Amino acid sequence: MPTEIIMDFEIKKRDAAGRICSLKTKSGKITTPNLMPVINPNRFLISPTEMKDKFGTEIIITNSYIIKKDEKLARDALKKGIHSLIDFNGPIMTDSGTFQSYVYGDIKLDPIEIVKFQRDIGSDIGTILDLFGTPDQSKTQAEKTMNETILRAKKSIEIKGDMALACTIQGSIYPDLRKKCAEEMSKIDSDFFPIGGVVPLMENQRYTDLIRSIISSKKGLDPSKPVHLFGAGHPMIFPLAVALGCDLFDSSAYAKYADDDRLIFCWGTEKLSDLNELPCSCPICSKYTAYELKKLEKKQRRLEIARHNLYVSFEELKKIRNAIINGSLWELVERRASSNPYLLESFKVLRIKENKDFLEKFEPISKNKALFYTGKNTIHRPIVNRVHNRLNKRYKANFDLTVIFPEGRKPYFSNYFEKIKKIFEKKNVNILIDSSIGPVPVELDQMYPFSQSVFPNYTDRETEDYISSIFEEFIKGKNVICWKGNKTLKEIEKSDDEKIDFDILMIEKIADMQFGRNAGRILTSGRIKIVKSKKTNKIRNVYLNEKHILSMRAGDGMFTLKDEGGKILHKKLRFPRLRVVIKEDAISFVKDGKSVFSKFVKDSDPDLRPYDECLIVDEKDNLISVGRCLMNRDEMLSFNYGMAVKNR
Amino acid sequence: MPTEIIMDFEIKKRDAAGRICSLKTKSGKITTPNLMPVINPNRFLISPTEMKDKFGTEIIITNSYIIKKDEKLARDALKKGIHSLIDFNGPIMTDSGTFQSYVYGDIKLDPIEIVKFQRDIGSDIGTILDLFGTPDQSKTQAEKTMNETILRAKKSIEIKGDMALACTIQGSIYPDLRKKCAEEMSKIDSDFFPIGGVVPLMENQRYTDLIRSIISSKKGLDPSKPVHLFGAGHPMIFPLAVALGCDLFDSSAYAKYADDDRLIFCWGTEKLSDLNELPCSCPICSKYTAYELKKLEKKQRRLEIARHNLYVSFEELKKIRNAIINGSLWELVERRASSNPYLLESFKVLRIKENKDFLEKFEPISKNKALFYTGKNTIHRPIVNRVHNRLNKRYKANFDLTVIFPEGRKPYFSNYFEKIKKIFEKKNVNILIDSSIGPVPVELDQMYPFSQSVFPNYTDRETEDYISSIFEEFIKGKNVICWKGNKTLKEIEKSDDEKIDFDILMIEKIADMQFGRNAGRILTSGRIKIVKSKKTNKIRNVYLNEKHILSMRAGDGMFTLKDEGGKILHKKLRFPRLRVVIKEDAISFVKDGKSVFSKFVKDSDPDLRPYDECLIVDEKDNLISVGRCLMNRDEMLSFNYGMAVKNR
Repeated sequence: MPTEIIMDFEIKKRDAAGRICSLKTKSGKITTPNLMPVINPNRFLISPTEMKDKFGTEIIITNSYIIKKDEKLARDALKKGIHSLIDFNGPIMTDSGTFQSYVYGDIKLDPIEIVKFQRDIGSDIGTILDLFGTPDQSKTQAEKTMNETILRAKKSIEIKGDMALACTIQGSIYPDLRKKCAEEMSKIDSDFFPIGGVVPLMENQRYTDLIRSIISSKKGLDPSKPVHLFGAGHPMIFPLAVALGCDLFDSSAYAKYADDDRLIFCWGTEKLSDLNELPCSCPICSKYTAYELKKLEKKQRRLEIARHNLYVSFEELKKIRNAIINGSLWELVERRASSNPYLLESFKVLRIKENKDFLEKFEPISKNKALFYTGKNTIHRPIVNRVHNRLNKRYKANFDLTVIFPEGRKPYFSNYFEKIKKIFEKKNVNILIDSSIGPVPVELDQMYPFSQSVFPNYTDRETEDYISSIFEEFIKGKNVICWKGNKTLKEIEKSDDEKIDFDILMIEKIADMQFGRNAGRILTSGRIKIVKSKKTNKIRNVYLNEKHILSMRAGDGMFTLKDEGGKILHKKLRFPRLRVVIKEDAISFVKDGKSVFSKFVKDSDPDLRPYDECLIVDEKDNLISVGRCLMNRDEMLSFNYGMAVKNR
Repeated sequence: MPTEIIMDFEIKKRDAAGRICSLKTKSGKITTPNLMPVINPNRFLISPTEMKDKFGTEIIITNSYIIKKDEKLARDALKKGIHSLIDFNGPIMTDSGTFQSYVYGDIKLDPIEIVKFQRDIGSDIGTILDLFGTPDQSKTQAEKTMNETILRAKKSIEIKGDMALACTIQGSIYPDLRKKCAEEMSKIDSDFFPIGGVVPLMENQRYTDLIRSIISSKKGLDPSKPVHLFGAGHPMIFPLAVALGCDLFDSSAYAKYADDDRLIFCWGTEKLSDLNELPCSCPICSKYTAYELKKLEKKQRRLEIARHNLYVSFEELKKIRNAIINGSLWELVERRASSNPYLLESFKVLRIKENKDFLEKFEPISKNKALFYTGKNTIHRPIVNRVHNRLNKRYKANFDLTVIFPEGRKPYFSNYFEKIKKIFEKKNVNILIDSSIGPVPVELDQMYPFSQSVFPNYTDRETEDYISSIFEEFIKGKNVICWKGNKTLKEIEKSDDEKIDFDILMIEKIADMQFGRNAGRILTSGRIKIVKSKKTNKIRNVYLNEKHILSMRAGDGMFTLKDEGGKILHKKLRFPRLRVVIKEDAISFVKDGKSVFSKFVKDSDPDLRPYDECLIVDEKDNLISVGRCLMNRDEMLSFNYGMAVKNR
């Protein structure tokens, strides 16, 4: 590793598989997700200074091939450096000419020379000269160009010097090739991963292939490096791409569309001639009426439309970053999908179990905002997939009889309180709500997202069918009856179920869902004392044999694991369950209460998810502290920067 | 009718049941749909001058009750007039105190005095003191308050003078009461119809009841008067309300939400504290960062947020008006619905056949933009309902055998050309495409919206089930086989169908769909000459016995009826089919080629829809000209202003 850091990448906030990161380059730090406007080195439509001042542009991209082939530009760039040539002192990424060779056919360019040139002009992020994998390639062709791309990357790495090197993922529309290319590129010292070859997919609205390409690339990629969706400049796909784990976009679209008198909007593109009024409040659209804009002379009009296009593009990124912070990125993604029938259709890729399981690894345990139903895709979100997975793997019904209640007002427990009380006066049974989100055992109803979700009374047939199948699977083999008032009460009298305290049942089952099977029983074996909120009468703190083991968060209805609870779980749950193993040299810091940075993580439980409670242990499995994960295992093991576990 | 015009209302453009209108008042002309910001006469948060200059506000609303109960304000208003008091020289609407009595209980106010007061201070549009029908009223209560409201309206009319009078529609959540109230109010000399009592529905997200209230009111209302959704200030519901026929909104929301540090967006409302960045490009959000806005002192912050709220509200209206012009209002409405689960659920009201049939009356025959699928509501749009209705009522299969082809690329005819040619070499049969939009006879495939629609390969289960049922109904009793290549060709050989020319079949069937059953046969009985475009090889002009009867529009694949075609249809189709009967005094103008204004329409065919071709006749059914309707029958008979039929 060079002494000078050529790139740092650190997660600050997260939602879906998206993330807000701090990306440090030689020329400064930026926040992702972000957009790199394309600057034509021959002539600036909008100057880099205006980019910075008016649009908050933090990073730009320009083309080293165009600079290199122009003798004067090349000489100037080598002499003064790219930052001076472009007059931008922030981070600059350079492209290599791959796209030009795709568009104009074979151009004479040596793959190593162009990387050296990028290095020598002082590019912050240079790009290998990869081979553009077109969607019409056969698999054999695609594999061949992919292999050549990997070979070039390996050679380029050797001469990258202090430049961060972007190694583009190719593989055409073949998911296994994309994944393989990503794995190979992750093995070498790449700093940055563009996903390439996607422009024709976007141009032809082949969003299904686009999503497949992104997901399969992500499956193979080192999660600790920035991912750039190369050539994606239309904000319509930003939310989805970010939710799948893309961090950067580049846009020449703002200028290209402006050439053609087309205005970019988050729902698509509109021709100026089709607009009677400007449906936007950006400074450009606030300055002109549609009529005035149409009347401007071509050059000025093009400039003003390009500005509008940039305002809208950066606005969408602000919406995305806000959504990540609020935990509502999937809502934004699904809302945007209804703008375009092909984009909407492409969501079928996100309904495939394998993809849902992959995305679930990155999904936070709970969010600041409730889960909102937007249509038939909502039920396939990774967080819903997780609760179904955890119900199947971690939840165990304690009683012989299960009584099913229909969906009602939330929270279910208090809504059904009178009926449930009657049941509990007779016998204890499992009570299961047949909800829009799936089966909800009533003792879990305060957990995110069961209570914290907003579904209409009637959703849609696909959601209902899907949930029915989940429900059927969940109750299979159980002794089940449906609630029918007094008639049901009589049936319950016949059951043999033992009576237990509802609060204890709740603690046990929530703990199982959070910490895994049997964790609940372990945490409730002994003298339990429960402290409730005087105001809401909800559980606040749990003591076992006088020791404070758990406290419940009001927001998501989940437990925070206290030291004493951690000790018990550590003793009873076998390694590696809930463990994050840290390296020797971090132990004393963690003992002092400091958090765990990812580079000190040796290993961890693969079932841990962002914001899960965890046990921090040393390599001999001695418990050092309890904490809350900020990453999943793959991330902990790959990130060089950032916090992996927040120490309590 | 008074000599001075107190209100003119004229349709300029239309889409869905929405309309862009010019609304003329004593104090000037405005365009609807529009928003009336609420001005507090005691203290301006944003001055009416700024409203006009910065936000393009054309009309405002203020409260006459608040003015009247303040001695000084009342004296000033009576002396200087409301326009001078408020310092706004455009149209001013005044509210009467109804909402205050709903919120604060019984306030002492004489229903006639407050109307007189509004008249005397020079209000352009004054409002009766209606009784607020709350959603929790029993039907008996609701009927009582509704009757009292109607009584008050009748009394108020007598003393309105030269003020336009807004007669509010009440009736709580009971559709039949709403409709009855609307009918009664339409019988008297009302100028303007607020739909009242809806604020609690919006506050409690009871959008299903809201839509029902709007539609049932509209069913009873004189379509020629402006409709105001009283108290609706959140842009989230503007698109839907406009699509159902609302023309005006009033907003105190911009100020109320600002009080509470909440920012309005088209997808809902966000607390400033929840925003890390301002996800908007309006002049306010371009001026401040979220941090800076949070740090402003309360008064200034409130003002700036109120400004943002107005920018966003007016921006949504621009989007709506653009969508009306482009014919994409339903797309906008459906896109917005995914912002809110309750709003989405409320669309069930729009899937009820009776409501679809009502909305279909207002729906233009074709649009500038293709129909885009956005989800399960698309198939229930009025225009889809219309093509299904017309297929059932107007389309008649000529052949004994129907061959069903699966959905393929569009246009179907050219996509299936090779196969169809093979069929036609053998025999003529009916060819039916089992498309996402329903059954499409191949000869109709160029007609809007069959070719001009974008559906994904797979839609959703509800759409598929619905379309299956439409399809089944359509082929019931027909001799049907599915296309299976050569096997099908052999079966076709056995059929007895007569051979006819495909171009003639196409002309006949499109004419039937446009002009009604048998119109096609009438227009093709004789020597037909067809002139096709050299470029596209599509039919351009049709001659019958050397006379030019039809020309086909490239955009929507429908016919323009020529004079000679009109003469033939007039002779063969019985009154009132396709007729618009005009009054005596308009005849000479129409003969001179002038268009027909609605006030000269005596009657018309109830089956005519906006943009349908029609026959202009006198009261004795003498044909005067052919033209294109701009209105449906109800509109023609009620509008005092605007064009009813465009003369060719």
